[in-house]
Amino acid sequence: MSQYTITVIKSEEEKPKPASDDLSFGRYFTDHMFIQDYSEDKGWHNPRIVPYQPMMLDPASMVFHYGQTVFEGLKAYRTEDGHIQLFRPNKNMERLNRSNDRLCIPSIDEEFGIDAIKHLVHVDHEWVPDAPGTSLYIRPFIISTEAYLGVRPSTTYQFIVILSPVGAYYDAGIDPVKIAVEDEYVRAVRGGTGEAKTAGNYASSLKAQELVAEKGYAQVLWLDGVEKKYIEEVGSMNVFFKVNGEVITPALNGSILQGVTRDSVIQLLKHWDIPVTERRISMEEIYQYHQNGELEEAFGAGTAAVISPIGELAWKGEQMEINQGETGEISRRLYDTITGIQYGVEKDPFHWVVRVK
Amino acid sequence: MSQYTITVIKSEEEKPKPASDDLSFGRYFTDHMFIQDYSEDKGWHNPRIVPYQPMMLDPASMVFHYGQTVFEGLKAYRTEDGHIQLFRPNKNMERLNRSNDRLCIPSIDEEFGIDAIKHLVHVDHEWVPDAPGTSLYIRPFIISTEAYLGVRPSTTYQFIVILSPVGAYYDAGIDPVKIAVEDEYVRAVRGGTGEAKTAGNYASSLKAQELVAEKGYAQVLWLDGVEKKYIEEVGSMNVFFKVNGEVITPALNGSILQGVTRDSVIQLLKHWDIPVTERRISMEEIYQYHQNGELEEAFGAGTAAVISPIGELAWKGEQMEINQGETGEISRRLYDTITGIQYGVEKDPFHWVVRVK
Repeated sequence: MSQYTITVIKSEEEKPKPASDDLSFGRYFTDHMFIQDYSEDKGWHNPRIVPYQPMMLDPASMVFHYGQTVFEGLKAYRTEDGHIQLFRPNKNMERLNRSNDRLCIPSIDEEFGIDAIKHLVHVDHEWVPDAPGTSLYIRPFIISTEAYLGVRPSTTYQFIVILSPVGAYYDAGIDPVKIAVEDEYVRAVRGGTGEAKTAGNYASSLKAQELVAEKGYAQVLWLDGVEKKYIEEVGSMNVFFKVNGEVITPALNGSILQGVTRDSVIQLLKHWDIPVTERRISMEEIYQYHQNGELEEAFGAGTAAVISPIGELAWKGEQMEINQGETGEISRRLYDTITGIQYGVEKDPFHWVVRVK
Repeated sequence: MSQYTITVIKSEEEKPKPASDDLSFGRYFTDHMFIQDYSEDKGWHNPRIVPYQPMMLDPASMVFHYGQTVFEGLKAYRTEDGHIQLFRPNKNMERLNRSNDRLCIPSIDEEFGIDAIKHLVHVDHEWVPDAPGTSLYIRPFIISTEAYLGVRPSTTYQFIVILSPVGAYYDAGIDPVKIAVEDEYVRAVRGGTGEAKTAGNYASSLKAQELVAEKGYAQVLWLDGVEKKYIEEVGSMNVFFKVNGEVITPALNGSILQGVTRDSVIQLLKHWDIPVTERRISMEEIYQYHQNGELEEAFGAGTAAVISPIGELAWKGEQMEINQGETGEISRRLYDTITGIQYGVEKDPFHWVVRVK
């Protein structure tokens, strides 16, 4: 049997599916999951789709101790005519392998990874919701499983994919949020793991998030770890600003995640002949643009929210209101276009969409 | 039943114990483990000692995705007259709670944590080896267990302790190693999680370690993440230098782990009236000391090796040999004294040792 033959063991019972207005995010999981094992002698082997079930792991498994793990996040969308489609899954598999390299995890076959995702989504296709704005969130992840307490890369791994039907991110249309610039805590630094999608980056972000939430902010804006001057990300999204008609976003520097939505935003803006520049952006610069009335829009971009407008930015005691706290024109156009492509109601000039079966 | 009453379920069979010359590190585990659960409504509850067994965890458990986890490492030592003793376990429990705070994990009762460790070691006391240099490694750790994919602190956790009989760190006496100064990769940065004992710090260290190992070095010397000038740690140990009769070590700055062995070294040096200073130390400064013939010793300090002398330090193409590649006088005296206290053959002026039963 080839390493690319996926064994399927169907679940004997189907779980009840939650109502589409009760989905929220990442709370319910489908009937099946994908698992593939890695060992040094066999490489990646035994790919299988099995009933969704607990993992049995030795308490000494390295993932619990040394965090050698990577993950991805993408979605399957139900079109109006009932088809199911993915959005740029190749970008997720490419990034998974870049993350693998940084974390010393053996690379996966990217094409096979996409096939595995499609196969699993097909098996659980009844779980792809069809209410507006809903989708099936796909979480591929790899964990180190060797039962050993020495600090070195594991010799065994599991590649797993789980699926979760998720609700519309915005209950009542896209809605600007308040963001606080983070001056003390750091998410990532040059030479660290910021560019990789790995657990530790998220663990280190929790404290800052908890502290600003107490003050009524939705997320933090992360500055660079070296000078604490340059803008990196917002929450777990990439960030964009519209200044005097030009859209600017921090250039990739090794500590910023290479977002799939980020790339899609840049491609669309170019397609529309709207000037877009990737460069280093200081917080002081954004503050000056705001003071001069040149800061027209600000928004986060990521898989979960697609586009998340920033209505207010707090920095060093200053409250900067952006676009009167309203969603800007470019933010809305990007949101409508990207979600339109994802759900199959807009043209797909870049062939981003991949149909399942 | 009180939250402090530990239920004990004994294993029905005893695993064979490995030979003392086959122990190595972190490879074998004893017959039992300690587990305690946390939930928002009950707090920490249901402490129990059970047969060593796999953990059953939902694949959506947050530990696999967002790395919200902390750990500790300490040892139980068999004295010549057959008693079992721990070394400064209160320091580990204090640090565990500081790590918990940084990672948004609910704090544990430190006294109870020590009791739980003592109880578990007592149940598995036959696993504490008695060959010279061997010990029982104790690994307390806390993992986030909620099955949820949103990025926020988990609402449920498990506090676990596992035990592993380990061999002598040095087969043939304490042995200096070659270390490469790391100029590209960064372990931790000010505002990050470097001071916490959490999985992500170790995950991010693997790549640099892998690259220098290919060039024949045992470990990397980590520089600060901001300026890449100042010395932080060596491998997963704290680092000390002896210069002109004075011992210097990097001052704690938020990105350096507060090692228990580090603290013990400082206390012993003061007790011996040897000058010891905690301050910022640049790599350039150490290089100049070496050029001037003033760098007398260098060593790492940590639980596993206790003292690990550095015989050679490579930086920017320069190979600095230290003390002719031999173990220095202070390094040896510290090693002999600390291990002597741990095994009960040296006086314990600081009351560091805690006896089990």
